[in-house]
Amino acid sequence: MSEKGTRRGEFTLIAELFAPLSKGASGALGLADDVALIDVSPGCHLVTTTDTLIAGVHFRESDPPETIARKALRVNLSDLAAKGAQPIGFLQALSLNDSITDAYIERYVAGLAVDVQEFGIPLLGGDTTSGPGPLTITITAFGEVEKGSALLRSGARPGDIVGVTGTIGDGAVGLACLNATLDLPTALAEHAIARYRIPQPRLAIGRALKGLATACLDISDGLVADVGHLSEASDVAIVLDRESVPLSPAVRAAITADADWWDVVLGGGDDYELAFTLPPERVPALETLAAKFKFPLTVIGTVSAERGKGVTVTSGGKLVPVSRTGYRHR
Amino acid sequence: MSEKGTRRGEFTLIAELFAPLSKGASGALGLADDVALIDVSPGCHLVTTTDTLIAGVHFRESDPPETIARKALRVNLSDLAAKGAQPIGFLQALSLNDSITDAYIERYVAGLAVDVQEFGIPLLGGDTTSGPGPLTITITAFGEVEKGSALLRSGARPGDIVGVTGTIGDGAVGLACLNATLDLPTALAEHAIARYRIPQPRLAIGRALKGLATACLDISDGLVADVGHLSEASDVAIVLDRESVPLSPAVRAAITADADWWDVVLGGGDDYELAFTLPPERVPALETLAAKFKFPLTVIGTVSAERGKGVTVTSGGKLVPVSRTGYRHR
Repeated sequence: MSEKGTRRGEFTLIAELFAPLSKGASGALGLADDVALIDVSPGCHLVTTTDTLIAGVHFRESDPPETIARKALRVNLSDLAAKGAQPIGFLQALSLNDSITDAYIERYVAGLAVDVQEFGIPLLGGDTTSGPGPLTITITAFGEVEKGSALLRSGARPGDIVGVTGTIGDGAVGLACLNATLDLPTALAEHAIARYRIPQPRLAIGRALKGLATACLDISDGLVADVGHLSEASDVAIVLDRESVPLSPAVRAAITADADWWDVVLGGGDDYELAFTLPPERVPALETLAAKFKFPLTVIGTVSAERGKGVTVTSGGKLVPVSRTGYRHR
Repeated sequence: MSEKGTRRGEFTLIAELFAPLSKGASGALGLADDVALIDVSPGCHLVTTTDTLIAGVHFRESDPPETIARKALRVNLSDLAAKGAQPIGFLQALSLNDSITDAYIERYVAGLAVDVQEFGIPLLGGDTTSGPGPLTITITAFGEVEKGSALLRSGARPGDIVGVTGTIGDGAVGLACLNATLDLPTALAEHAIARYRIPQPRLAIGRALKGLATACLDISDGLVADVGHLSEASDVAIVLDRESVPLSPAVRAAITADADWWDVVLGGGDDYELAFTLPPERVPALETLAAKFKFPLTVIGTVSAERGKGVTVTSGGKLVPVSRTGYRHR
């Protein structure tokens, strides 16, 4: 994690802007050493995940730097949430370029600071480089989970139900609003855009799903694509009921105006909700959880009783083709 | 660590090329989940470090993909070595672009596979993305070290001696040979180029220095710059004796031809040797270690008895100016 001297003011950047984000974390060594030291609670695995966000690919270059930073951190926290893990800290590898001003970085760090505080997750280290490419942010997040209790993609069993947290499609609809391919009333558009820019990692619900869910993952590439990953890892076939998919008023408005938006809702991404499976007899426990969290946990499908693979979507008992699969995050 | 669908064949890439690199590591979850699970030995810290290498910035675009991969991993292992840590595994965030062919990636993975084998360090997970920028490799490496025994940058004490492993300046001289700004006999040039392309993380020596050294770091930005980091973190002043700096025949030849190459040797980078401090009474133990490893461990300077900051270089008792400080890795 030595900081290569390819950009003026890089060491100052670290000392003045990044080091305060490591406050209270002795293992960060003040961001002044080569490494970070992490201690894991007895009986726990360390859980780690890394995600790269590239300007113009995974976010819009015109997005506010504050929300870019928060999204970069949150998509990683969402992966920890999906495993039922408790966050510990994170590393940040930041590749800047000459067009990025100090003022831009200050706004970026201000956004990051909000989430460092909100999630109680310190910056433990990183690497700041500079190159000719677009702004590239690779965050590696760390958490811990009791051994044997991590929610994996591979545990779904025939006969399980499939559930999701929150509402689906907001991120993709928000992006459409930003790209002006969809026109929604202002309040609805603002809700969807906020969902696109600042995903909510479902950490508390993820932890509560341990012992209840048989498999879990977060929805980043799109509901159908990610449930497909779960189906593949668990070697089961999954049927989703389109009319059961929980929708926000913004997404409902888009679909009411034009049913073609279903494709974006089911095939789009940036939801960062959790999709999970559990045996039908645990549905009452799921309802209790939803009541406790005052948050929607919705059954949207089933794992087929017979072995198989893949995801099919039905509506009113009829098969629905889902044409959009390769998701673009901008 | 969900794999964004921005590149055709990405999932195939992971399944066919990357997954074999995770062999034997159950915590990698077959590279098919969102996270990796890591277990740390009782009584140990997890040690983690991340470094980004950008094509055209940290390596030459014309470097062989095999050595690019190995260098990306090894610069991280070098950070673990400097702390006295034992490697556990690594994550790889790879940002590709449209000009990178499958054949290129196959060569890259073949190189990585050599080092996965050599260092017994499995790939635990990652993120593969694609964008318009240059090939960008961010590796996050994990190791473990007994609590209380990590070699930090901050432990140097007044009166300590300063030592280094191996020889200094080979990487920078190798780069000069590649860039044709230096002409050396073929065998010497080849040695220096190999040192530039495939650094040797001093893992065994790093571990052996625990309990002996008071501070340690690896030399990536250049001897004077990195000893400067040690000086700053330890709040001590350091004096290096230029004539004591150990040189390979290649570097010796460059300096003999033109003493100006001293600037490149002292101010250049990509050495990936260790610089460390220890009390003078431990020098005999250091000599024993050098004999045991059959590897040069050389005293090159001292920590001033009085408090202070910064690094000065002397030659024959006279101050030597070191003009080159901002190192370019290509």
